[in-house]
Amino acid sequence: MPARPRRARVLPPRSLAEIGRALARLPGPDAKAQMRARAREPHLTKPRGALGRLEELAHWAAAWQGRHPARIERIAVRVFAANHGVVAQGVSLYPAEVTAQMVANFAKGGAAINQLCRAARAELKVAALDLGRPTADFTEAPAMTEAEFLAAFARGFRAVPDRADLLCLGEMGIGNTTAAAAVCHALFGGRTVAWVGPGTGLTGRALKHKARVVAKAVARYRQAVAANPLDALRCLGGREMAAIAGAVLAARFRRIPVLLDGYVCTAAAAPLEAARKGALDHCHAGHVSAEPGHRRLLAKLGQAPLLDLGMRLGEGTGAVLAAALVRAACAAHAGMATFAEAKVSGRKRPRARKRQNQ
Amino acid sequence: MPARPRRARVLPPRSLAEIGRALARLPGPDAKAQMRARAREPHLTKPRGALGRLEELAHWAAAWQGRHPARIERIAVRVFAANHGVVAQGVSLYPAEVTAQMVANFAKGGAAINQLCRAARAELKVAALDLGRPTADFTEAPAMTEAEFLAAFARGFRAVPDRADLLCLGEMGIGNTTAAAAVCHALFGGRTVAWVGPGTGLTGRALKHKARVVAKAVARYRQAVAANPLDALRCLGGREMAAIAGAVLAARFRRIPVLLDGYVCTAAAAPLEAARKGALDHCHAGHVSAEPGHRRLLAKLGQAPLLDLGMRLGEGTGAVLAAALVRAACAAHAGMATFAEAKVSGRKRPRARKRQNQ
Repeated sequence: MPARPRRARVLPPRSLAEIGRALARLPGPDAKAQMRARAREPHLTKPRGALGRLEELAHWAAAWQGRHPARIERIAVRVFAANHGVVAQGVSLYPAEVTAQMVANFAKGGAAINQLCRAARAELKVAALDLGRPTADFTEAPAMTEAEFLAAFARGFRAVPDRADLLCLGEMGIGNTTAAAAVCHALFGGRTVAWVGPGTGLTGRALKHKARVVAKAVARYRQAVAANPLDALRCLGGREMAAIAGAVLAARFRRIPVLLDGYVCTAAAAPLEAARKGALDHCHAGHVSAEPGHRRLLAKLGQAPLLDLGMRLGEGTGAVLAAALVRAACAAHAGMATFAEAKVSGRKRPRARKRQNQ
Repeated sequence: MPARPRRARVLPPRSLAEIGRALARLPGPDAKAQMRARAREPHLTKPRGALGRLEELAHWAAAWQGRHPARIERIAVRVFAANHGVVAQGVSLYPAEVTAQMVANFAKGGAAINQLCRAARAELKVAALDLGRPTADFTEAPAMTEAEFLAAFARGFRAVPDRADLLCLGEMGIGNTTAAAAVCHALFGGRTVAWVGPGTGLTGRALKHKARVVAKAVARYRQAVAANPLDALRCLGGREMAAIAGAVLAARFRRIPVLLDGYVCTAAAAPLEAARKGALDHCHAGHVSAEPGHRRLLAKLGQAPLLDLGMRLGEGTGAVLAAALVRAACAAHAGMATFAEAKVSGRKRPRARKRQNQ
């Protein structure tokens, strides 16, 4: 079994400047592991390219785990929950108490993510971030102070285990599709309505109201976000989103490939990419959500989702489903026999084929 | 644990007429199990519809297993292998010996499907059908006599276990994308080239040659196929394809939902649907293959594939990957707490929402 390379430092950044410095010295993919994965591929007993995106996933996992062949044994799932001041604006069909109630449901094993983790043999941990203290209503003030943002970011950073083969990220927070839409709109511009979706089920006037709330908030912080994309998270995001960004950064330093979940999770990671191109290269989009802004966001990030099942639950559900694909991809790459080992004939030589075709 | 309903007779049909009679009395979905699944869904702790296609899959599994909640514990994977006389026409990049070599590779655990079954905790059995005796070259004579067709069909029928929670079907046979294209073209018409794809990797002149071979063969049997769609399988298919059709029929009588794999597997099942509308209602397309005819075929059958990963290997690989989704869907449906059990608040009442939105 190949040894894992020594990991870089694992302390969370203590200031925005330190996050910037961490982004400036991100570890890249392991070129040797990636090369070995690519070199093995054409020898495996299948026509070239016949496993499609599974081939790419096995190479990606090798590159970012820093070993060949990549292994997916320990799948760590981290779900972050927080409350949002902006729910005072009436942007959700569900009351804010549901966030804490769902965290209790996670703890008792009754939520969708619990069942999907069991089915995928994945290890779930949920972190509730100051549920009794929602972020500020960002139509009136920045959602978080710098200290609050850094505390949430550090919480996510520290939630990443030292050793795991794959990290799936998820979130829960009544009101957080409003925050996600605001973060995306502030980062990428365009029409407000293109980023605003039904969330838990808004329609008609309520949906238009949500768009107005987002537009108002984004106008407030556009300049700050242009100067520092991470301010989109601090001013318009939420604690669970800051934690996700911290976890994405920690996973990069710990050589753990990441599966992102839906709209809120991807929006939480997007400011890292906006601040430093390539910052999400160790991340794959597990799925594309039914929340319409998600498809647009993935396109902006150059991410092609692995699944498209009309889901829009969050909690990491789409990421954990996709983890089974990554595990299968790595199992196929590592375990398949080569043409030589299995004594399977390769392609006929072109000349012989030409004769046959006449 | 709910009891499974008594199963219908499990003997394979001994004549084409008996297949016709079986198709005339196919068991339908279990309306009670389906109703119970639909009734439970809105009580589960998630916004309505938030699990997207996973919800539909759990209802589908309940309807066709005939129990609520559906359970996915035993996943049976059946792969059928056969050789094709049409390879004499030079329609594949690989020599016909590869079929037997790959069957040996399956037996030793070295193929992609072995790794994916292990990752999915699925039970794999491979049946090699008369590899030393290829079907006739269907450009010159029907691929199979009626007796040969029925023997292969029965082999597939008997390969389905009495009890399994999900059946994944797959195939291996050098030359069989040519057979699949011919079956589809004979059943559904259209332009020949729309059904003919690269298979293991044909391009340019070789691909055009493959299309000519298909067009020539289909012209020969068009009338026979119009009279009886199953003749598409007998005259233009292969033994592995007849076996798949038999397995699909057996699974219906044994109340086992089925995941189809790629182009060849779906083409093998298609004549059943052409002969009797609804005959594939207990089947789901596991994925859509990179072989271009597959997407068109799925559209003809009204099937929306679960995965779209650019795969084109066959062996049941796409079906087994999708099995993890069905298992997750059933686990979520069965295991999630209801709003009442978890004491999670439901939606706010519309009036309260309206006030907030003002």
